[in-house]
Amino acid sequence: MSEFEIAPFHVMDILARCKQMEAQGRDVIHMEIGEPDFDTPNTITQFGIDALNSNLTHYTSAQGLMELREAICHYYQEKFSVNINSEHILVTPGASGALQLILSYLMQGRQTLMISDPAYPCNRNVVRLAGGKILAIPVNEESQFQLNADLIAENWNDDVVAVLVASPSNPTGTVCPKHELLEMAEFLDKKKCYLIVDEIYQGLIYDYESETVAGLKENIIVLNSFSKYFGMTGWRAGWLIAPCHMIERLDAIAQNTYLATSTIAQHAALAAFLPETINELERRRKIFKQRRDILCQSLLEMGINVPVVPQGAFYVYADISKYSQDSFKFCRELLEDQAVAITPGCDFGEYQANKYVRFAYTTSEDRINQGLQRIEKFLD
Amino acid sequence: MSEFEIAPFHVMDILARCKQMEAQGRDVIHMEIGEPDFDTPNTITQFGIDALNSNLTHYTSAQGLMELREAICHYYQEKFSVNINSEHILVTPGASGALQLILSYLMQGRQTLMISDPAYPCNRNVVRLAGGKILAIPVNEESQFQLNADLIAENWNDDVVAVLVASPSNPTGTVCPKHELLEMAEFLDKKKCYLIVDEIYQGLIYDYESETVAGLKENIIVLNSFSKYFGMTGWRAGWLIAPCHMIERLDAIAQNTYLATSTIAQHAALAAFLPETINELERRRKIFKQRRDILCQSLLEMGINVPVVPQGAFYVYADISKYSQDSFKFCRELLEDQAVAITPGCDFGEYQANKYVRFAYTTSEDRINQGLQRIEKFLD
Repeated sequence: MSEFEIAPFHVMDILARCKQMEAQGRDVIHMEIGEPDFDTPNTITQFGIDALNSNLTHYTSAQGLMELREAICHYYQEKFSVNINSEHILVTPGASGALQLILSYLMQGRQTLMISDPAYPCNRNVVRLAGGKILAIPVNEESQFQLNADLIAENWNDDVVAVLVASPSNPTGTVCPKHELLEMAEFLDKKKCYLIVDEIYQGLIYDYESETVAGLKENIIVLNSFSKYFGMTGWRAGWLIAPCHMIERLDAIAQNTYLATSTIAQHAALAAFLPETINELERRRKIFKQRRDILCQSLLEMGINVPVVPQGAFYVYADISKYSQDSFKFCRELLEDQAVAITPGCDFGEYQANKYVRFAYTTSEDRINQGLQRIEKFLD
Repeated sequence: MSEFEIAPFHVMDILARCKQMEAQGRDVIHMEIGEPDFDTPNTITQFGIDALNSNLTHYTSAQGLMELREAICHYYQEKFSVNINSEHILVTPGASGALQLILSYLMQGRQTLMISDPAYPCNRNVVRLAGGKILAIPVNEESQFQLNADLIAENWNDDVVAVLVASPSNPTGTVCPKHELLEMAEFLDKKKCYLIVDEIYQGLIYDYESETVAGLKENIIVLNSFSKYFGMTGWRAGWLIAPCHMIERLDAIAQNTYLATSTIAQHAALAAFLPETINELERRRKIFKQRRDILCQSLLEMGINVPVVPQGAFYVYADISKYSQDSFKFCRELLEDQAVAITPGCDFGEYQANKYVRFAYTTSEDRINQGLQRIEKFLD
């Protein structure tokens, strides 16, 4: 594929067909959607309304509201015992804005970003659109579908300027442990390169406490978002934590590219760390965990293998090779036959993409159970 | 300057000094700010509040709410008698999002965008950050500080993929008449190139009816915004109108880069075209016109030449060469001496940049008059 070409997502075909089927009155169960089904917590929405009632609708600085950056620092201190200075934080239009910002900084034209295959596909496309190159390293259950220092070293070339890791990952939901991330950063430090860690699913970890690598090494850049754990998808707000020497230029790039993040979203996000909000989010996390457990268990019982139990996010990356050698065809047929929508592996890379599909548990337990019954019928 | 370098705005120095002075208790008159001093009209803010009360906080499609795209079409039909199909519109995170979107589409790496000098500086920097080249054509009062078909032809090279024109322009406030824009599009059509017209100040024209070139030729792309005329700066919403054959790829780029525009902003913007809103905006337009007239008149009386009376936006590009050959120094000294903040010409390009400064009339008539008195003292 040429550097500027971007492949259409196969799931767009699935979505288009869903719409047709729904227009014909069919009841489609949506397990393809990468967005929590929960509304934004009331506490956050109320802060948004308060901001609007106070006419807080002018631009903020490009770096973002100081009050919000300080609230983010406080959150890191409380939750992770990590000391971040508010000057190291830029509030961004979602994590996608944060990624574009850091890529504009790091990727001077035709350089290379190393990622895993499978991985979230937009990242790859953003790099291609900017004329950069992608080095996608095949990963499987042996490394928990994550990169590690050995894989990076084995696949190294000097055109690489940074490695991007998502933990928990989309589509696999697997976590990269902190000590492994630090090992990678160590290796990259010797190469004078950066480790970008996408922590947007950080709050959504189910079997143990979530971690961060923000502020732990001078060559680590962390991306995060109010979208997933905090339930603020449509507001478009996230943040980036970068070492001190990068901030001035990042701020200048932000001034030139997106000017500032939505003022209303920033004021609303001030409620994201309130105890009442966190209580609600933790309640939701337990619901997500329950959904994950049901989904993984049932898929395994049907002979759909889940090679690594996903520790976080809201995805299950499942091996359908017992039933099909063409995951896109499998998804199309499952939709036609039983009206269950899932995402084919080919949307996340090339490596073993035909063996895998992604289930998103962003719908209720009832709907998931219904979906599982339909899948069972489909496989019979 | 290297392609990836971005010059810091000189006005940032001015702003930093303003803050220091204000912290010391000095009363700074701000005429450097490119943001209307008015709050978002109540009708719009109320639609935002209603959206939040209805929990409309999930993602929209990348292309934007159909209802909003249809409202935009209806506005073009009513105001300009131009027929636009909602499928040709993408709602974007501000006009800056729209510009990035179209540049990602058009500029395959090292190609060139032709612009005027002076021009809005962010556009130049965005192209540089993407590894593209800028061909900045000096313009002066002879062409109303705008490009035209002759200037484009004289300066043509085959690396150019598109020409960007802003009408009304920042920093000069001058308008490029429709027939001239169509001539440029005609010329570019023969080269199989595009004309991008930035119409973000479209509603703010003072001496005659505003125009649009949207939908008039197959190689014209129009950028617009809810920020300036509609008073929605901090919401981050704009739009792009492009020919049919571009839409699918633009939509794919949007899906990959910013995912979607703020949902709350989109719902709020549905109120932008209501008669009550337009009444309020037209009231504001009259106030801007009055400010412009006072400012231009007084500057001329002081010997600060305004070579072309700005027909739109909220800027006056004024020639201070009678008093100084260094516009940045002039701005610094005016600030130190009289606490009036304005923007030096060097932020908008290189051509005659030392002769010019930009005044923004985004503050009240009283403050403008006070500012003018101080400037008079400064020049004495």
